[in-house]
Amino acid sequence: MEYIFSDKLNSLKPSAIREILKNSGNSIPFSAGNPSPLSFPVDAIRELSADIFQNNSTAALQYSITEGYAPLIESVAARLKSRFNIDTDHNPVIITSGGQQGIELACKAFCNEGDTVICENPSFIGALNAFRSLGTNLVGIDIEGDGISPEKLDLALTENPRAKLIYLIPTFQNPRGTTTSLEKRKAIYEVALRHKVMILEDNPYGELRFSGEEIPTLKSMDTEGIVIYCSSFSKILSAGMRVGFVSAPEAVIQKMVVAKQCEDVHTNIFFQMLCHRFMTEYDFDGHIKGICDLYGRKCALMMSELDKNMPKEITHTVPDGGLFVWLTMPAGSDMLGYIKACTAAGVSAVPGIAFNADTEASSDSFRITYATPSDEDIVKGIGIMADVAKNWIKS
Amino acid sequence: MEYIFSDKLNSLKPSAIREILKNSGNSIPFSAGNPSPLSFPVDAIRELSADIFQNNSTAALQYSITEGYAPLIESVAARLKSRFNIDTDHNPVIITSGGQQGIELACKAFCNEGDTVICENPSFIGALNAFRSLGTNLVGIDIEGDGISPEKLDLALTENPRAKLIYLIPTFQNPRGTTTSLEKRKAIYEVALRHKVMILEDNPYGELRFSGEEIPTLKSMDTEGIVIYCSSFSKILSAGMRVGFVSAPEAVIQKMVVAKQCEDVHTNIFFQMLCHRFMTEYDFDGHIKGICDLYGRKCALMMSELDKNMPKEITHTVPDGGLFVWLTMPAGSDMLGYIKACTAAGVSAVPGIAFNADTEASSDSFRITYATPSDEDIVKGIGIMADVAKNWIKS
Repeated sequence: MEYIFSDKLNSLKPSAIREILKNSGNSIPFSAGNPSPLSFPVDAIRELSADIFQNNSTAALQYSITEGYAPLIESVAARLKSRFNIDTDHNPVIITSGGQQGIELACKAFCNEGDTVICENPSFIGALNAFRSLGTNLVGIDIEGDGISPEKLDLALTENPRAKLIYLIPTFQNPRGTTTSLEKRKAIYEVALRHKVMILEDNPYGELRFSGEEIPTLKSMDTEGIVIYCSSFSKILSAGMRVGFVSAPEAVIQKMVVAKQCEDVHTNIFFQMLCHRFMTEYDFDGHIKGICDLYGRKCALMMSELDKNMPKEITHTVPDGGLFVWLTMPAGSDMLGYIKACTAAGVSAVPGIAFNADTEASSDSFRITYATPSDEDIVKGIGIMADVAKNWIKS
Repeated sequence: MEYIFSDKLNSLKPSAIREILKNSGNSIPFSAGNPSPLSFPVDAIRELSADIFQNNSTAALQYSITEGYAPLIESVAARLKSRFNIDTDHNPVIITSGGQQGIELACKAFCNEGDTVICENPSFIGALNAFRSLGTNLVGIDIEGDGISPEKLDLALTENPRAKLIYLIPTFQNPRGTTTSLEKRKAIYEVALRHKVMILEDNPYGELRFSGEEIPTLKSMDTEGIVIYCSSFSKILSAGMRVGFVSAPEAVIQKMVVAKQCEDVHTNIFFQMLCHRFMTEYDFDGHIKGICDLYGRKCALMMSELDKNMPKEITHTVPDGGLFVWLTMPAGSDMLGYIKACTAAGVSAVPGIAFNADTEASSDSFRITYATPSDEDIVKGIGIMADVAKNWIKS
């Protein structure tokens, strides 16, 4: 049988990150977007799971409603209100199967095949592929140190009348690790509103600030109901349990619930119970602070190793939070050759092309993380990358 | 902001079953497709979860690969081979977030917006809505006691050149509870092959036979690689944990993996570990036999209560397995009025219209289940339905 697949999936390649993760073997893991295993509150999870399967097993194992476990919806809504100033009274919360599902559902709710999604360039490959898997076209706007230019966004929206969604990671962006300034956030919101195009604000790293000043979320400025806010527990509790959440205007949430029902009926209920109880019965703020301290320390170590060892021709971003650092080689360098040589030498990284909106475009950059590797591996890995780099930088 | 949603979601209504489940309150639960809580091996799950979070917590809480947990893939493949004679050497297995996701991914892999899915009529509402949520058109073929007519399928495929998928639940069909005969299975396979259209065989109830003779799966006859086989642990271990699986030719599986990556990255890994260990370390066959015995007994009780009490004008199917019984009122009855009266009297059931491929079509039928209610509630509930029926059957 010769298979004729749908147009939307026919051109879609497996995620480069997932493929690297699958084949990374024993190399130093600078490539994955995994949280540190040290961030998992294992003792609490062990206690809570024992209690849930002892005292609430039927509810934890039976079908549940698509919107999510009501007590978790409440505790997430309370957190979004207190921590990010989001008006959850008018923007109800639903629970999704990781942040990934929230992103995909938002696109499904607003985009027909052939519609356009505007995104930062580079951006999170998982989101870009989700948009592609729904048959949309991507238009990337090159990101600057303080976010995309509102003027370029205005132009892109004018030039693309079928634009239905603007996808942004304003805080500790993936892959660059940088943050959109308050001024640009305000201007971006005004531009989107003027064009009547929805913003999908993806904020999986928002809780993970270890330096610099808090910047309000786009959703906190959203008086007109044009922002869909997505996030998850993946980076603050556990990635493997696949629990995320969305806050958006009621009408939008209703459509996303219907679409979610068609995808997986509901998110596994046991981990929803566990998240709720961890948030309300344990020191959640203290737990988050512990992760921020951990990543702050690891990031500082990586910055210092980079500055000490890396050829100055390779520049890097300086994150105030999140997981990622973005390195850029001199224009026209053989970035792919360099990353392959690093992998051969025992360090993995993600080539920048993986994050391009235009899959044919080139890149001089690559992404690494300080979250997953041990301190020893950060020192060793940057040392290896610096050594390998010497052969790839023209002097 | 006035929202303009995608065409595919704009017309999609929330699932009638989910809505009834959400609002069923204290009524006798004849409506849900929930497995019996007695079918959950709670002690084993408690032991296994304690052990996993004690000895394997990092792997259970970290990101994993999209295809699924390798040991579970192996044990599912072995089971499909031994129990259903499926050639898993040439039809690899992936793990999905419930059977629902397998169904949705199969459609996404083969269908563009505007393509056609052929299905049994009536059929599983969750699948029909998944097809609708991807912008496909549904063409239903009225199901007979022994499955759809291969001749009608042939005609439908001829009349619908954009048909890309044939969706069937050959064994203990939802909602009818009936099974497609071996002769029809063979003929259906030949028709699909001649038209080069893929079959999606949904078999979530296949393990739950309590009487009658085993009938080979369509997938076991699939020498040409045109059958995608979907199933799940929802009805044999736990529905809330959201773990399902698909077996299909390698090229199809590759596309489904890429699509799954875009939806939820991977299925929660903890319950994948748990399923694998339950299958290999506990008496899985004994556990399945226990569920079959339970449902066989409950079904017999419901059949006897129906035959004793229900007006003869209301006919019912006699299942050999699975969860469902399908009742049909005399042509032109006010079925909806009757179901509403039953709900008011304290018994919930699902109106047949919920399962129609054509949402405008009427129905004289409704679905009930013996799986969820207690024995006492089966007796009481059928008694109430029979009493209410007397006012709704014209003598």
